[in-house]
Order: sequence, then C-alpha cells, then structure tokens
Amino acid sequence: MSLLTVGTVAFDSIETPYGKAEKVIGGACTYISWAASYFTDNIKLVSIVGGDFPADELRQMEQRGVNLEGLKIVNDKKSFYWSGKYHDNMISRDTLVTELNVLADFDPVLPEAYRDSEYIMLGNLTPAIQISVLDQLRSKPKLVVLDTMNFWMDVAMDDLKKVLTRVDVLTINDEEARQLSGEYSLVKAAEIIQNMGPRYLIVKKGEHGALLFHKSQIFFAPALPLAFVEDPTGAGDTFAGGFIGYLAKTDDTGFENIKRAIIMGSVMASYCVEAFSLDKLKSLSQNDIAERTDAFRKMVHFDIPG
Amino acid sequence: MSLLTVGTVAFDSIETPYGKAEKVIGGACTYISWAASYFTDNIKLVSIVGGDFPADELRQMEQRGVNLEGLKIVNDKKSFYWSGKYHDNMISRDTLVTELNVLADFDPVLPEAYRDSEYIMLGNLTPAIQISVLDQLRSKPKLVVLDTMNFWMDVAMDDLKKVLTRVDVLTINDEEARQLSGEYSLVKAAEIIQNMGPRYLIVKKGEHGALLFHKSQIFFAPALPLAFVEDPTGAGDTFAGGFIGYLAKTDDTGFENIKRAIIMGSVMASYCVEAFSLDKLKSLSQNDIAERTDAFRKMVHFDIPG
Repeated sequence: MSLLTVGTVAFDSIETPYGKAEKVIGGACTYISWAASYFTDNIKLVSIVGGDFPADELRQMEQRGVNLEGLKIVNDKKSFYWSGKYHDNMISRDTLVTELNVLADFDPVLPEAYRDSEYIMLGNLTPAIQISVLDQLRSKPKLVVLDTMNFWMDVAMDDLKKVLTRVDVLTINDEEARQLSGEYSLVKAAEIIQNMGPRYLIVKKGEHGALLFHKSQIFFAPALPLAFVEDPTGAGDTFAGGFIGYLAKTDDTGFENIKRAIIMGSVMASYCVEAFSLDKLKSLSQNDIAERTDAFRKMVHFDIPG
Repeated sequence: MSLLTVGTVAFDSIETPYGKAEKVIGGACTYISWAASYFTDNIKLVSIVGGDFPADELRQMEQRGVNLEGLKIVNDKKSFYWSGKYHDNMISRDTLVTELNVLADFDPVLPEAYRDSEYIMLGNLTPAIQISVLDQLRSKPKLVVLDTMNFWMDVAMDDLKKVLTRVDVLTINDEEARQLSGEYSLVKAAEIIQNMGPRYLIVKKGEHGALLFHKSQIFFAPALPLAFVEDPTGAGDTFAGGFIGYLAKTDDTGFENIKRAIIMGSVMASYCVEAFSLDKLKSLSQNDIAERTDAFRKMVHFDIPG
C-alpha cells in the first residue's frame, strides 16, 4: 500500500554523556521514512529542506523506495536545525538551538500522485499543517497516524483538537496524554482521547515501552533493555515509521495487527538508539529485524497452566 | 512447600490525593503473608508487634494458614508505625512519621519448626537481621528471596553485600539497581548484581512493570494500567508475596516458573493498590486471580507470522 509521510528533514547536533555528533542528519520524516523502508518501498515524502542538505542523503532515500517529489528544496535557504544535550538519564534533554530556517515557510503542497495515499503518517508539526495535508487528500485514507507533542497543546490546542477528529491513531507520551485529557490515570485519559477522534491511542513511555489503548482493550509493548544507548534522538519517529511501514505492508488495521505493528515499531526504535543519527538504522538486514522481534517475543512470553 | 517470611507487621497512616487512612494494618510481612496465602497455607511468619496490635488481625492470618509461632508480641510496647503522604503521581511520597517502637529491639529467633523452611522471603529490614535469619536455618533452603532498599545501601552496604552472597533472588527498584551496581544501564547493572550473589534480579518499576534478569535472559512483566489507584502502599511486598507464594506452591525455581511467579506477583499487586491497607487483598477469590492473570496474558500477547 502507498504510505505518505509528512514531517521535518533536518540537521541535528547532539551531545550525550557518552559522545557528540555535530550537524548530522535528522528530522522526523527522515527517521520515519528509513524505518518504514524496511517494510515497504512505496513511500511518498512531504517535507522541505534548504540548499545545504546533502544530495547524497536524498539519493540514498530514493534508493530505499522513498519518492521525493513532495520534498521542496529551497536553494538559497538553510535546512531546519536542532541542537540538544541529553542529561545523564539519556531521557530528559535541553534544547540548545532551534533554527527554523526553511521550516518557517513550510506550506506543503501534495503532488497529484500523492493524493490517493492509503496510509498517512503525520509527523510532529503545527496542527494547521497536518490539517492542510489531510485536506489535500482526494480519497479517504485507510489509516491516519498523527504524532504531536505538548508544545502544540500549549499553543494550538484548538487546531490540534480539530485534526484529532480526523485521525485513527494518535502517538504521544504519557505526560502528553495526561495534559491532553486532564486525567492522571492513563486508562481514563485513553477513554477521553478516544472520544476526541482517534480510535487507537499509543502512549510512548521511552525506556518503559509503549501502551496501546483501543476501546476497553490494552496492549503493552516493552522497550528492549539495552546495554548501551548512544543517542535516543529519533526513537519516537523511528517507532512511528516501523509501525506504519508494517501496516502499509500488511494492509490490516485491526487490533491484532496494530499490536504487531507496535512491536515492529519498538524493534526499529531499539536499533535507532544504538547509534547517533541514522547510523544504525541505515544498515539493518531483515535478519536483524527478525532476530530482535524474537527477542521481544521471548521477553514477554509466559504460559501459566490453568 | 514451607514458606518462611520475615519482616514488619505494623500500623500505617496514609494520605493520598484521593483519601486518608488512619492507623490501618500494614507492614511488609503482613502484605507478603496475605498475598502468599492465596497460593499456600504453609506460611511461617517471623516478626514483632506491640500489645496494641489487634488480636483479630492475627486470628485472620492464622485462618489463612499463617503460623504465628515466630511472631513476638511485646505487650508493654507499641507496634512499628509509619505515616506517609503520597504526591499527585501516587508514586513518590513523603514520610511524615516513623516510630520504630518494638522494631528497635527486633532480634528474630526462629522456632525449631521453622528451621527447615524451603522458601525464604526476607522482607526489607536491616541486612544484619536478614543474615541472622539465614544463620538460623538448619538446612539449605530451595530459594532465598531478599527485598531491600536504598536506605540500607547508604548505611549498611557491607552487610548488604554479605547477605547478597546467600540470596537467590533480589528484588529492588530501578534506582536502587543503579545505586547498588554503579551502572545506569539496567542490563549492565544486572550483570554486576548477579556477580554479587543473586542468580535472579527483579527490578520493580511500579506502574512501569517489572524486569527479570537471569544470565543473559530478560523477562518483562507489565503493570496493569488501572482506572483508579487508591493506595500504592504495600504493592512491592504484595508482589513479593504473590511471587514466593506461587513458587512455594509449584516448587520449581527454573527460569520459566520464575517468570510465571512474577506475573502472579504482579496480579496480586494490581489488586493491592485498588484499596487502602489490605482491604482488597483480604477478599479475593481464586476466580479474581485467574481473571486478572488472563488480563495480563492478553495485555502482552502478540503473534507475528515469520
């Protein structure tokens, strides 16, 4: 199935207690596309970069099946740039620099060939842009997944609530689920959020895994405990990419398959954090993915005789 | 199999954002015994209380198969008393009052009939007391489980390390695992802690579940997301009680059965937190336990075709 992904393609500078990476490739759409590319080669990307973005990076994505007709290149401007420094726990972080650059003018226009896409991944962006993308679709997609963050709840809650009515799956973290719903209990929060639109809520808890809520059903996918995390940047986007990539491949949006997709997202994210930027994510084999899927299965499987 | 449990039997006063309970029944050994009593009626309790502890509470425990020959009652003194107030997240809490009372003189003497116990649950206490209990055993037990906390790492690390060499299973939380090992990564921490003695490490993460480490194997048991948590006090002890109770019943200390025991501990803990004190834990049916075990199974089960 065709997969449309919208979000940033950017540069990051990252500092962790264990190392530094200066102006490396980042951006939600980049991580999403690379992760999804292990499941499907029918990916349509919508984003914007400056003239400073390496042509070779774009060529590599095209070779993975990512269509870049929807990528606007503004030659006389610079790409979006984010710089951050992680605390010792490798979870909380300080933003050091945010240079919007081309992103300030991002007003995505979907190419004709994109408008019948069936699986839509709206990366974390202004809710108004996410709405505009949905408005440009010609036919009702099979599944719309939206990622967002607390910032948009603070400054654009009305728009966010508007786009949520058109979304099937929302991915946010536990604090954001509490903020969006006004409820501390995630069970109650999930009920309220499902009433806002999304029939699936995925609560991402980083090293504590991810929870899926759907009606009264709950599924839990752990995060794989890793001996070494080099850089958590992009883990959430990689999760989203693996998730929707698997769904686009299998074309089944039922609860059981959504569970499988969450495991595949978790598998991809577990590789993402083992290296800076896309260093690990670019060089996986199908065997790597199968092996780690098996590790996830073993980690949660139990059998209690009745 | 015979189960020996050592720890506090006490009073708690608890305040949460949702309610208050004044001088209710608490204590690690109380929670452990009640939780274990759903799996075995051969429980030997070692603890100390004052003359103020209600005889009816003791009678109820005896009716559940808890032998109280090892409970010292000091008539002219008061029982251990703890008072605490939970923050809005229902996880972090402030201790308001700690009155050691009889606990200050606790020097457990094991009755003759206790000294051949096969499953040993050492609740959170001074490591010196935990050592003294092990010293009084006549035969090598089948499994020794030890619970401890950061306080003992701060004030009695040498004794703690001594007792750890004689322990099969250690249960601590993630911060304590990091403190004990000096490693942030739980995978590395688990390796170091296993080298200190325990062949199984259980890392309790509260609402984020529990991780089991054994050699290079990892098992993850989620916590059940609950619509309402009334009082988290005793959840860790209830977990431990369900865990060792199930092991004493099934008499199998292999990895697969330890996994099952962790699920049973999680099931019991999920009930514990739904009410103050032992209010919920005292009135469960085997059907309640089976139902929730099934909820845990459903929550993590997935099947990905190869």
